[in-house]
Amino acid sequence: MNNMTEILHLDYPHLAHLQVFESAHHLTPWLADVEEKKNRKLCETLEQAIARCGLRDGMTISFHHAFREGDRVINHVVTTLADLGFKNLTLASSSLMTCNDALIEHIRSGVITRIYTSGMRGRLADAISHGLMEEPVQIHSHGGRVKLLQDGELTIDVSFLGVPCSDEFGNANGTQGKSCCGSLGYAKVDAHFARKVVLLTEELVPFPNMPASLIQDEVDYIVKVDTVGDPTKISVGAARVTSNPRELMIARAAAEVIEHSGYFRNGFSMQTGSGAAATACTRFMEEKMERNGVIARFALGGITGSLVDLHEKGLIEKLLDTQSFDGQAAASLARNPNHIEISTNVYANPVAKGTSCDRLDVVILSALEIDLDFNVNVITGSDGVIRGASGGHCDVASAANLTIVVAPLLRTRIPTVVKQVTTRVTPGESIDVLVTDHGIAVNPARPEIRERLLTAGLNVMDIEVLYQRAIALSGEPKPIEFTRRIVGVIRYRDGSVIDVVRQIKEE
Amino acid sequence: MNNMTEILHLDYPHLAHLQVFESAHHLTPWLADVEEKKNRKLCETLEQAIARCGLRDGMTISFHHAFREGDRVINHVVTTLADLGFKNLTLASSSLMTCNDALIEHIRSGVITRIYTSGMRGRLADAISHGLMEEPVQIHSHGGRVKLLQDGELTIDVSFLGVPCSDEFGNANGTQGKSCCGSLGYAKVDAHFARKVVLLTEELVPFPNMPASLIQDEVDYIVKVDTVGDPTKISVGAARVTSNPRELMIARAAAEVIEHSGYFRNGFSMQTGSGAAATACTRFMEEKMERNGVIARFALGGITGSLVDLHEKGLIEKLLDTQSFDGQAAASLARNPNHIEISTNVYANPVAKGTSCDRLDVVILSALEIDLDFNVNVITGSDGVIRGASGGHCDVASAANLTIVVAPLLRTRIPTVVKQVTTRVTPGESIDVLVTDHGIAVNPARPEIRERLLTAGLNVMDIEVLYQRAIALSGEPKPIEFTRRIVGVIRYRDGSVIDVVRQIKEE
Repeated sequence: MNNMTEILHLDYPHLAHLQVFESAHHLTPWLADVEEKKNRKLCETLEQAIARCGLRDGMTISFHHAFREGDRVINHVVTTLADLGFKNLTLASSSLMTCNDALIEHIRSGVITRIYTSGMRGRLADAISHGLMEEPVQIHSHGGRVKLLQDGELTIDVSFLGVPCSDEFGNANGTQGKSCCGSLGYAKVDAHFARKVVLLTEELVPFPNMPASLIQDEVDYIVKVDTVGDPTKISVGAARVTSNPRELMIARAAAEVIEHSGYFRNGFSMQTGSGAAATACTRFMEEKMERNGVIARFALGGITGSLVDLHEKGLIEKLLDTQSFDGQAAASLARNPNHIEISTNVYANPVAKGTSCDRLDVVILSALEIDLDFNVNVITGSDGVIRGASGGHCDVASAANLTIVVAPLLRTRIPTVVKQVTTRVTPGESIDVLVTDHGIAVNPARPEIRERLLTAGLNVMDIEVLYQRAIALSGEPKPIEFTRRIVGVIRYRDGSVIDVVRQIKEE
Repeated sequence: MNNMTEILHLDYPHLAHLQVFESAHHLTPWLADVEEKKNRKLCETLEQAIARCGLRDGMTISFHHAFREGDRVINHVVTTLADLGFKNLTLASSSLMTCNDALIEHIRSGVITRIYTSGMRGRLADAISHGLMEEPVQIHSHGGRVKLLQDGELTIDVSFLGVPCSDEFGNANGTQGKSCCGSLGYAKVDAHFARKVVLLTEELVPFPNMPASLIQDEVDYIVKVDTVGDPTKISVGAARVTSNPRELMIARAAAEVIEHSGYFRNGFSMQTGSGAAATACTRFMEEKMERNGVIARFALGGITGSLVDLHEKGLIEKLLDTQSFDGQAAASLARNPNHIEISTNVYANPVAKGTSCDRLDVVILSALEIDLDFNVNVITGSDGVIRGASGGHCDVASAANLTIVVAPLLRTRIPTVVKQVTTRVTPGESIDVLVTDHGIAVNPARPEIRERLLTAGLNVMDIEVLYQRAIALSGEPKPIEFTRRIVGVIRYRDGSVIDVVRQIKEE
């Protein structure tokens, strides 16, 4: 054999770099020991996992937000990192919520110095809007986040992913165990891109825990923890179910717009984003679909119990789920073979080899503000303070054939339809129809849709008319006073800067 | 907004490289057109797909071998490339079979000048053993192939993957359509690593064809073709079912070895590799499992109808399928939720973050030759000619807790147990037990297993005794005469060179 290798190296010099076999585990010594081979990923504590990952100051850590307001991983991990003395970390969570107020102190003390996120709310967002961070927060869309990872602007050193259950090799999903969050669509992307992946799991189950959403070949370490999240709080806030009559009225009107838009036909596809009126629209679709014999080919994005109902009634063939918006959706994902978990890459990355939102006929989205050019703000309130999330808004708005925005004309006497949005997240060219409680406006770029809605007798008017009505009801709002300082950069899905958020001037 | 960006770039010079938003599709112009967005992957012809991939002379193309002897993609694509005038390509198929004889002319004419494969048979293997190629063939294991891809020794420029059905975005699986091959475990790896991925599909079905094995975000182009393979020929050759009494006798003895090995307990795991006696062993396990109340946690690797039977009887909880060895297995994969498709990376890559074979208790493997040091040859015949495949042999042999090799003592009067194997594929240190039709030998490194088998009254003897018996029956075989020239390099799973195959001396 030695002789053979000599000949190989002599006769084929370009193969001379090939190593000669020594013994079965010579190059993979960790496979020689039966126990090490089996249990090498298990860590006694989170601290141990952090040490084994080689995390250092200045690196980037990531999280998913499938538990939304119920998340118990982000604060726990960052507090542990703070206790360990880490500084200058970049926090790249797929999103941040009201539950992440605890991060304020870790930003103040220099543990976290940069943030990439789809959005933020509550005290954290308020503090950042008032200048908490030196470096502006990078606010991306769900699809745009994957592009940033693909391009290498964002590189995750260690991803900490909470899951309800995993085996000791890291096969995990969000549909088994005590705290089911449903789809792990965000986590799949982080598991794929991160240099090191740590699972925090509530339960350890026997190998092989398959089918799995996160697969053993993308997981480095596993820590058992008491809790990763409270699934009952997933549908709090933006993903709540509404019984507000005005929201239901808007939802009903949006369903009528769909019905008469020209896109409501057998095999169509739909998404109803977060926001109470948007998700409520699903309920009004049922009667229309049954009456017209229309079956949807698929529904996409954040999946709600209402969409599951339509799926189980045979009115939607497939559910493509990047985020389960409630317990009913999580349970359906476990049960229904045509309720399919997809990664955020498959959902919305504009430069993926294929993105599901590109196949979308109709989407219903929310807005904090929409202006006379149909630009939409979903990130800052009328006071200029961050209180929302980019989410998949600009992704699906640009991709769908019919993009409908639903919003009340006024919120607590503050106009939603404005002359110019405080912050532009989604460009007006991507928005086709605005549905409010005072009437419907169609983007002048889509005259054929305006025509169809008028023919159907819907209450269509110019957006200028809606604006004037809002002003008449509430008075012209006082312009917000900002400082020069930039606290947030709004990244369009392709990575470009579509707007910035400036620091609020203190009164 | 322009003003805003100026401030951003001024105040944060490290963000000055960020582009400014222009319009929704400015950086992704292919998304602006509804038809292009939807159909941009579809190619009229294979030639068109090849052109769009930018394939050039000297590049590397890859294929999967899920259809085994029924494959109709490899020859078709290589012939097309020959017709187009391509030269000097590296062919990296997960394996090659008797059905690939047609490649001989394309090697002769310089279309293919390098080959990476798990094995080869028939006239192609014969021609290569007699010096057809200037460059030695690199023969890797299934797990080792993924390591070569991971390390970058092997880089796939274009992967041509045959599937029974796909949608126009590239969501494809092997369980729907006319020609179901079952698991696409090999193809999943190529889709992951290849720069460009072309699907050849027999059927185009509506989006979203999910759940999918190959997912849209890893597929570039799609061509509809008349045929990709004949699934009835999957179980021809190495994966055949036997009724040969000697093979059945060996299979029965192997089952007895498992029963008394110390590894036969509730929750154990097993693999029965290719080769008739190995796969037949499954049938003898059933009675033992029922009698002893033993349920296997999982079976791994190439999945057969016999394993599906045990799974459906509740005797094996999970089937982890990297290759469906027959139509029954393919049908089960479509039907049984705990019959799970896994990639070759998840199956056997020694440097993956987690490899399923590392969790294996018992594996039964075949051998063309086994020597007094328990080294195994599964690649060359007793005449020194290539006629087999490395497959997962050295992967699972090294990983399992109990590795059993089954082989007849003689094959057409030629000894299987030899002084030294013609070609070493799997090192003897990985083999624990040899089961032949003349007795059982245990590796001296595992005295405890020898003890258990003797206690159970099994026919255990030294391997030297088996060797002497073979010689007595057949006479000492004449040594094979080779030239100095190397025609094949046998790569161990970790990439090291464990042996070479030399050119046969012409008589």
